[in-house]
Order: sequence, then structure tokens, then C-alpha cells
Amino acid sequence: MKKPVFVLAPDSFKGSLTAGQVCLAMERGIKKVMPDAECIKVPMADGGEGTVQSLVDATGGKIYELEVTGPLGTPVMAKYGIMGDGKTAAIEMASASGIHFVNKDTRNPLITTTYGTGELVKACLDKGIKKIILGIGGSATNDGGAGFAQALGVRFLDNQGKELPSGGAALKNLSVIDISAIDSRLRDVDIEVACDVTNPLCGETGASYVFSPQKGATPDMVIELDNALEHYAEMIKMQLLKDVKNVPGAGAAGGLGAGLLTFANARLEKGVEIIISYTNLREIVKKANIVFTGEGGIDFQTQYGKTPYGVAKVAKEEGKSVIAIAGYIGKGVEQLYSFGFDAILGIMPGVMTMEEAIESASDNVERTIENIVRILKLNNAD
Amino acid sequence: MKKPVFVLAPDSFKGSLTAGQVCLAMERGIKKVMPDAECIKVPMADGGEGTVQSLVDATGGKIYELEVTGPLGTPVMAKYGIMGDGKTAAIEMASASGIHFVNKDTRNPLITTTYGTGELVKACLDKGIKKIILGIGGSATNDGGAGFAQALGVRFLDNQGKELPSGGAALKNLSVIDISAIDSRLRDVDIEVACDVTNPLCGETGASYVFSPQKGATPDMVIELDNALEHYAEMIKMQLLKDVKNVPGAGAAGGLGAGLLTFANARLEKGVEIIISYTNLREIVKKANIVFTGEGGIDFQTQYGKTPYGVAKVAKEEGKSVIAIAGYIGKGVEQLYSFGFDAILGIMPGVMTMEEAIESASDNVERTIENIVRILKLNNAD
Repeated sequence: MKKPVFVLAPDSFKGSLTAGQVCLAMERGIKKVMPDAECIKVPMADGGEGTVQSLVDATGGKIYELEVTGPLGTPVMAKYGIMGDGKTAAIEMASASGIHFVNKDTRNPLITTTYGTGELVKACLDKGIKKIILGIGGSATNDGGAGFAQALGVRFLDNQGKELPSGGAALKNLSVIDISAIDSRLRDVDIEVACDVTNPLCGETGASYVFSPQKGATPDMVIELDNALEHYAEMIKMQLLKDVKNVPGAGAAGGLGAGLLTFANARLEKGVEIIISYTNLREIVKKANIVFTGEGGIDFQTQYGKTPYGVAKVAKEEGKSVIAIAGYIGKGVEQLYSFGFDAILGIMPGVMTMEEAIESASDNVERTIENIVRILKLNNAD
Repeated sequence: MKKPVFVLAPDSFKGSLTAGQVCLAMERGIKKVMPDAECIKVPMADGGEGTVQSLVDATGGKIYELEVTGPLGTPVMAKYGIMGDGKTAAIEMASASGIHFVNKDTRNPLITTTYGTGELVKACLDKGIKKIILGIGGSATNDGGAGFAQALGVRFLDNQGKELPSGGAALKNLSVIDISAIDSRLRDVDIEVACDVTNPLCGETGASYVFSPQKGATPDMVIELDNALEHYAEMIKMQLLKDVKNVPGAGAAGGLGAGLLTFANARLEKGVEIIISYTNLREIVKKANIVFTGEGGIDFQTQYGKTPYGVAKVAKEEGKSVIAIAGYIGKGVEQLYSFGFDAILGIMPGVMTMEEAIESASDNVERTIENIVRILKLNNAD
């Protein structure tokens, strides 16, 4: 390893560092030990928080702000990104319809809406965008994507011909789906949905049962919402001849998966796969001696499609060594060794509070990577 | 590295793991990655807590219990060790006269005594011991070792010929030091004192000013104790013709250093050097590919003679690589690289309380060492 090449492909450390900041801290740690080393920074994401930033960073794009309708109907400031090619956009639904816009007192999945997410898509259409990467994690909603569709011109009417109010619960009264005024540009846009869950729309493994309790649903609300989405799927099937109810991922993001499959030209894909593709990670990894990845937390769940898993998989397929770091090393982390992780180390310097950990995250990434590289150097000197 | 040899030479992780337990956890981590690796376990210490256990472990000795006089005059159970040779003993003064025997309400360095430490030495004399390793950290006392001497037959009298009460404050009334009844066997015993401080007995860098506040002394008490020790040193000089006041280390352990130099055949040495010598660490390290060390906490102070420093120094002199782990990585740890540390890594898996950290320490040592060895293996496979 005369002039080693390190590829730095971490996710963000949620709540403390963006993926780009993790890359910079990693680079500082490496350069302390090997000033001549080449560091190729590829800030990653898996469709969740940081996805837009990662894609914008990777392609030299730009971030835009827009006021949209929040999950409770009040305005919120949301962001989306246009990639360097000027034709592809990146959206995180949470930016418009995220759980962070509600609190313990206001959360109510009966009425929360994905309307703002639809408005973000509309803004992209206005910019002439032909392709959208849509990350759908962290939603506050359970409306089957009805709000999203409304923002793009679809009308949901009851048996009196009156438009339904916002939210999933109202869908139980859905009688007519009027797509006559749908934004025609939606047909010509590819939407790649970064979706890591395979839940169907309804039933015990569906959106309402699995995800709505964490959005504030009581057991009674769960049943009410599930029944409403069941009826919604039936109306879609009858009137639009699309059977989305049991498509894997239809239940993602409170059923936005189903809405996207119904009203848009959408494909559901693993989030990290999309980012790997757009960042050109596989080609970049080919140049590496060592690949560093990481995330705020790593545990057995990492193997279900989180960023470090995706990075390790690509790196291992290219015959490269992969070392991961994390602020939190959780249960079952040893299961990951068989998925291409050569080593996984924590960055915490000792007992501290979460606030202190967040405050010192950058230093901790730097110091840990520095010491890992010191070990790497050690061996090569033998 | 076909069949690598690892030398495991950690200190204890104070409050959670003995040095021997750290060795076992390190070995488990290594064996998970390299089942054929040879692990030579050398539990270390630096004269503080764990010194007796380490020396007993290293030599195949035995630990004995004895009821002695605690620092406040009430009985406490203390321990000492006889090494495998049957002729050498190891004592930690804290076991008899330690700060852990007093609490916020009872601590009072005016009256605390080293009498129990003297009783431990006496017990060793009764067993025919010819050499004693005495660790003197963690004391509750500021009596200049007067209590120690009393336990071995020395009498401290006031100008009425009455014996002084216990504790450093009473020494201000010292008029006559009567050594006529001193245990004559004390002359024939070598006492190697594991002493990492160089403070003199008196003055602003002396025992009372520097150490007594942490034993409960108020500013007034500090002055009272310093004056008493000053008078004590003068009496020793006048009556016993020994000038111990300014000997480096005389102020260690509330002046026990001075008492040992006065009344016993004692030498003050760096704790870790003594342990390195008795454990034969240098010869063992010669067989190593990699030396692992560690301690509960590592920071810039480690270079002032703590165990990992001593281990790294010996290992580096023998041309070996040294990797350290710690539960707490503190300020200035980067200063240690120039003292032979090749890498220093924390073991904490995330934000947790001290209780959780102590509870999971063994697992955290094991997992961290496992992953370090995974990195070592990685490179050798290149």
C-alpha cells in the first residue's frame, strides 16, 4: 500500500453529522496517518434522511426550498434537490409530510395528508424534470397517498359528489375517484421510489397495523384506518383497474406506495441500491484499497438494506475490504461479518450523554478512523 | 502471521474487570478470528488496585485475608498476597487503609491511620517473608506513616511521655520517637514501594497540600496537617538522623513514603516497572507479534507511568507493535503515539450509563479486540 486509496461511503450519523460531514472527518483521520493517501468521498444514503443531500452532493446538484402543505394541513418549508444533470430530482417525503411536523399532542394519522409530497412532485414537473428519486421514510401519514394524488389533480368524492376531507380515515366514504384533471405530465415522469419495506397495503402486515401506531394510532384507529384503506384499494381496483393492495411495498409510508403505483409511473426499489447506482459507487470502489462505511447505528437490522450493508455488498463483490464505524453498535452486529463487513468498530470515547455524543461525533469519527488506519499501516509495515 | 502470538498485558478496568478478566475477554475476541493464535496472558497493574491480584496470578501465588485496623480505627477485612516463591509478598495499602473505608461523613485526614497497613506487613513477617511489594495508592490517610510504624512497635510520645493518638494532626505534639521495641524483622525485609508520585513530604507540593483535600481536608486542616508533618520530619531528623522530608515520593500516600523510608528498608519505585519485572514481561513480549494492553481509562496522564505506558515502552524497546483499548479515551490521547502506542481504541458500543458500561465491559473488550484482529488479519491477507 504505497499510496493507498480509501473510498469513504458512509451514511449520515442521524442527528449529528451529514454523510458529507462524516466523509470529511474520516478523511482528516486518514490524512493524519497517511498524508499522501487518496480519499474518494461518496456520501451515501438509503432513501431516508440525507438522501437528497447525498444525491445532490454526488452529482453536483442543487437544493431548493418550497412552502408546501404539511401533514396537518398547515404550511411547512420543504426541500427537494435537482441533480447535476438538471433532469433528475430527489425528494424525501418526510421533508413535506414527515413525522417531525407533528408532536405528541397533534399527531393523528386519521387526518394527516401526503398532499405536500404531491406538491413537491408538482414543483419538479414545473421544472421539466423527467425522473424523480423519492425517499419515503419517516412519514406522519396513513392516507394511502390520496393527498399526494389530490395535489396532482385527482379528486376523491363521496356518494354526494363532495370532495373528501384530508387523511386516511375519510377514505372509508370514497365513492368516486376522478382522475380527469390529473396533471398529465405525471405520466411522463419516472418515479423511482426508495422503499425498504415489503408490507402490503392492508391487513395485519399492512400500513395501518404495522406503522400507524408509531404515528399515534390507537387500536381502534388502526382498525378504522385499515378498513378505510381496504375500501380505498377496492375502489381503485374497480374504477382504475389497478390491483395494488398486495403489491410488496404498497403499505410503505402509510400506503403512499400504493398511491404512487396507482397514480404515477412509479417503481419501488431498495433505497441504497438507487443511491449506489446514482453515485456510481461500484466503479469508484474498484479503485479502492479499503472501503470505509458507517452509520449512526449498526446492528442486525443493518442487513435489511441499510447503507452500510449495501456498501459492503458492492465492495465485497469487487473484492475489496470494508471497515464500518458507528456511534452505536447494537445487538447481532456479528451477523454482519458474513455480509462482507471485515470489521465494525464503535466511535464512542467513553460514557457520555447523547448530547455529548452528538457534540463530539466529528472528533470521534476522526479519531477512530485515524486509529484504524494506524492498525492498517502497522501491518503493512511488518 | 501464520500462527500469531498475542501478548495480552492490560491493567484492570477499574470498577468492572480485573486485569485477569480483561485478558480472558481479549483472548475470546482473538480466538473468534484466529482460533489457532497463541495468547499469552500477563495481567498487569501499576501499584494501584489489582497489583496484588496481578502478582499472585503471574507467579501462581495465593491471596490471604486478615482483619486489621481500618483508617478510622475500626476493624476491616484486608487482603495480601504471597507469591509463588513463598518468600515474596504483595500488599496494597488501600486494602487496609484505603479511602473506600471512609465516606463523606466519616472522612477526616486529621485522625486516619496507616496502622492496618503496618499490621499487614507484620503478618508477612510472621510468615517469614523476605521481600514485600507494597502498592500505596488510594489511601485515606495523612499520618506520615506513623500508624504503620506503631503497628510494628514504634512509639510516638508527647512531652508528658504519653502515646500520641492516631492520625497526622497529633504529630504536632510529637516529642519522642521510641524505636526500642520496633519489630527487628523489619530490618531484614526489602520493601519495594510502588510509587508513581514524586511529591515531597511537606510544603505546597507535599502530601497535605496536594492530596489531603481529596481525603476530606478543609483549607485549615491542610495547614494543620502540613505543620504537623513538618514537625514530624524534624523530629525524625533530630532523633533518628534521617532526612526524609524532601525525598521524592516521601509525600506519597499521606506521607507513608516518608514513614517507610524512615522505619523500614524501603525503596520507592515506579509501580509498573515493579510489575513488569515480576511478571517477566520483557522476555514474554519478545515472543509476541502484537501486544495488546489497556486500562479503564487512557488519556495524556497515561504517559506518567500508568500500566499501558509501561507496557508500550517495553514492547516498543523490543520492536513490537502495541495496540491499546480503554473504556474511556480522554484528552490528549494522541500524545501517546510517540510513546510506542500504535493504536488506541475505545470499547464503548454507544451512549450508555456507567452502570451499563460496567455491566457490558467484558463483551465490549471481546468485541473490540475481535474487530481489531479482523483488521490485522485483513491486511495480512492482502
